[in-house]
Amino acid sequence: MDIEQFRKAGYDAIDRICAYHYSLREKPVVAQVKPGYLRDLIPNSAPQKGHEWASIIDDYQRDILPGLTHWHHPSFFAYFPTANTFEGVLGDLLSSSTSNPGFNWFASPACTELEAVVMDWAAKMFGLHRAFWNVNEVGGGVIQTTASDSALTAIVAARTRYISDHSGTALESLVIYVTTQTHSFGKKAGMILGLRVRALDVDATVTTDNTGLTGEVLRAAVKEDHARGLHPFVLIATVGTTSTGAIDQVGEIGAIIEESFPSIWLHVDAAWAGVTLACPEYREFAQLPGINEHADSVCINFHKWGLTNFDASSLWVRERRRLIDALDVTPEYLRTKEGDAGNVTDYRNWHLSLGRRFRSLKLWFVLRSFGVEGFQANIRKCISLNNSFVERVRACPIFELVTPPAFALTVFRLLPEPAGNTDELESVNSLNRAFYSDLQSRPDLALTQTSLGGVFCVRFAVGSTRTEQRDIDNAWKIIKEAGENVLLKMGLLSLNRMQYT
Amino acid sequence: MDIEQFRKAGYDAIDRICAYHYSLREKPVVAQVKPGYLRDLIPNSAPQKGHEWASIIDDYQRDILPGLTHWHHPSFFAYFPTANTFEGVLGDLLSSSTSNPGFNWFASPACTELEAVVMDWAAKMFGLHRAFWNVNEVGGGVIQTTASDSALTAIVAARTRYISDHSGTALESLVIYVTTQTHSFGKKAGMILGLRVRALDVDATVTTDNTGLTGEVLRAAVKEDHARGLHPFVLIATVGTTSTGAIDQVGEIGAIIEESFPSIWLHVDAAWAGVTLACPEYREFAQLPGINEHADSVCINFHKWGLTNFDASSLWVRERRRLIDALDVTPEYLRTKEGDAGNVTDYRNWHLSLGRRFRSLKLWFVLRSFGVEGFQANIRKCISLNNSFVERVRACPIFELVTPPAFALTVFRLLPEPAGNTDELESVNSLNRAFYSDLQSRPDLALTQTSLGGVFCVRFAVGSTRTEQRDIDNAWKIIKEAGENVLLKMGLLSLNRMQYT
Repeated sequence: MDIEQFRKAGYDAIDRICAYHYSLREKPVVAQVKPGYLRDLIPNSAPQKGHEWASIIDDYQRDILPGLTHWHHPSFFAYFPTANTFEGVLGDLLSSSTSNPGFNWFASPACTELEAVVMDWAAKMFGLHRAFWNVNEVGGGVIQTTASDSALTAIVAARTRYISDHSGTALESLVIYVTTQTHSFGKKAGMILGLRVRALDVDATVTTDNTGLTGEVLRAAVKEDHARGLHPFVLIATVGTTSTGAIDQVGEIGAIIEESFPSIWLHVDAAWAGVTLACPEYREFAQLPGINEHADSVCINFHKWGLTNFDASSLWVRERRRLIDALDVTPEYLRTKEGDAGNVTDYRNWHLSLGRRFRSLKLWFVLRSFGVEGFQANIRKCISLNNSFVERVRACPIFELVTPPAFALTVFRLLPEPAGNTDELESVNSLNRAFYSDLQSRPDLALTQTSLGGVFCVRFAVGSTRTEQRDIDNAWKIIKEAGENVLLKMGLLSLNRMQYT
Repeated sequence: MDIEQFRKAGYDAIDRICAYHYSLREKPVVAQVKPGYLRDLIPNSAPQKGHEWASIIDDYQRDILPGLTHWHHPSFFAYFPTANTFEGVLGDLLSSSTSNPGFNWFASPACTELEAVVMDWAAKMFGLHRAFWNVNEVGGGVIQTTASDSALTAIVAARTRYISDHSGTALESLVIYVTTQTHSFGKKAGMILGLRVRALDVDATVTTDNTGLTGEVLRAAVKEDHARGLHPFVLIATVGTTSTGAIDQVGEIGAIIEESFPSIWLHVDAAWAGVTLACPEYREFAQLPGINEHADSVCINFHKWGLTNFDASSLWVRERRRLIDALDVTPEYLRTKEGDAGNVTDYRNWHLSLGRRFRSLKLWFVLRSFGVEGFQANIRKCISLNNSFVERVRACPIFELVTPPAFALTVFRLLPEPAGNTDELESVNSLNRAFYSDLQSRPDLALTQTSLGGVFCVRFAVGSTRTEQRDIDNAWKIIKEAGENVLLKMGLLSLNRMQYT
């Protein structure tokens, strides 16, 4: 494809994207395809001679698009949102057009320099202490691929610090602390690194007040492990867990670590909820004081609820040298005069891989185009929409909130009506599995499930920029009818009790 | 930005990309900026209110573009190439426009299904044995971010297999085998995982015939380590090392592993040179028989010399269950009915993170648009251009090839003329450092350095799709003049000896 062919194909692609977004509301949210659908549509080997672009892009439209689940559909309430803005798309487009692996300052100075600047913009927008700013050259921020990467990187830095301070410690005696509500990347990091993982039990507290890990649970666990000759060296605390949006008490936990167990690295995973720190009214609730005082590292994903297309996971550390100590390898072919002089940041030493995409460009576009106020407005809009859903759940006797609403996430379940049987956990769970299964088979709504201390629940997360009040109203209508139908089918709802609707 | 504003901004971005590519040849290859240049141009915090798109994109043009090193400039010969094709850009654009994290089949079926299909296309194009094809459901291929990720993933799978087969083995006794020529990700993987790394010495062989690791070096090392109570469990062999394009003898090594040390996992890193397997005439040289017979995993980066924009690192494994055993964590909120039924691939269990971009789309676009013949033509063109450079070096008495030419890479150095002093390693090294330093300060050419058993060398790698014979001719002119000037300045070249030019 030459430059003029690209111009034509590029305009056409832009038009197709516009058409996609115009038609989004009319599409099924969830792809209506069966496993293996594509093998029947595509030849089983690459063509010998190249095809015309027109036929390729038509095949994309016909065969690929219908196989996508539309995460930006206004009725997508599953998992957590993944961001999609036109500013983000344009950032990806321009970054791709000059593609380079940006590992060193020298490899493309603008990539490194823009990342250092916009990570400071973001740190300030979130109220992070200046200890985390790049400009101070002690701590700093870096864009990682995912929250899994950010956590894994932090754990590696923590282990390197621990082993360096306690040489001779057997790897087998090290323990990564997570909680029963930490994202699965905690356990996965243990598998990757071959290290023990201990999940501190917070199920009980989660199901009552959605408060996560407290200081006392931590203190008891550390004492127990020390007595067994084990060495907890890192704790992943979460602000806004995946299941329920629960919040570990970072200030309380951090104070205990600082006072009693200073060799434990405190990583705060605020991948989803961290963006609420842009709004002053959520800073205390979202643990900003604790993060600023105690965290060794903190992760906030712009690519979830932060308007910036996947991937853009931001990681801040209090001491950049901990990353560099853990990850710097400089063979001759990667040496540069600027790197040797030590007056530039070489981001390859701040993450696990070598090559990296120019991701700060899309973040810069987003922050400039939305401004802090536009960024805040999106957070507040989603929380307000979720609150309107919460009110419906609260007012309806066949549902209950399993945990208090958390930012833009509702965790709820269906109850038999009358509610006398709710103690029979397994029967209520089967009821909810049937309810969820009905919802999952629908094309016009996407939700996901979770389990809390054995209680099967349904999650409703608001986050698409296209979601409006009418979409919440429509979702509620679908959900309530599905709930009623399941109860009716099981003889747990008499028709004359449906007056409340 | 609404949909119509995006259409306008999108067209404009496409036009800017066209203008960029038209003007590439006139730009300096290497960014002419000083460390910190951008801090002076950009405010130190995000704007409170959003900016107009027109001002943002103008700032991009004015402040960011000049800070990029142009990896697709026809005179970029540094590192290894990174791919850039319009088909790749369009793939990134469309993937970004429907952004989703594609971790499960359910999360977006087309992402998983297209990846499974195009990885089979690629496997067939490279002549990989059907054991590596997804369609057979035993082995399979997956797109990773970088060759570092691919190797790290393979090492984690290897360690998990080893520990599972030899339970109770202390992590401290495990050893990752690389060679002195393996990419630095080998050492970095050891740092990340907290494991020993042993670099088998191949410097001596590299400097003579550019053959890398041989079977006998491996056998001696394993015996030595076993005697010391250590357990090598993985070997990273390279086809086309970063320094010199050297080739470890995969068939010979693999036979020894299979016969004598079957618990060692053989990972073949062919990140750069693996794409030559698309051309039948390079398959034997690039170790295809050995890979097919013995490798547990093999990595080939499409984003280097494979026409597909960064990132697109392909990893094939002989047994997919080894990845899944090492990496599968399935919490309740990631369960799906298709995943539970076991009739779909959930790629999150094939890599270290959870979320992943829809990267197979650009690879599909590239393979369809170029076809196998177009893909081969690009490889052959680059090798042929490099050969024309090699001929100049060979014919010129002030230069020598340090290693035989490898695919599209030349490793050479400047020699005093007459050449009598070449035994004085340090003086020849300083000469070459001065020579390289002159070249590095030029805006019209990019090259990188390396060191081979103490010998300082300059690398010349051909790979930009825009490089033509006239660019090789021009590069040679610059390099020869720079070499002559250094020799003249140091009194090592008399003017009357310059007749050979």
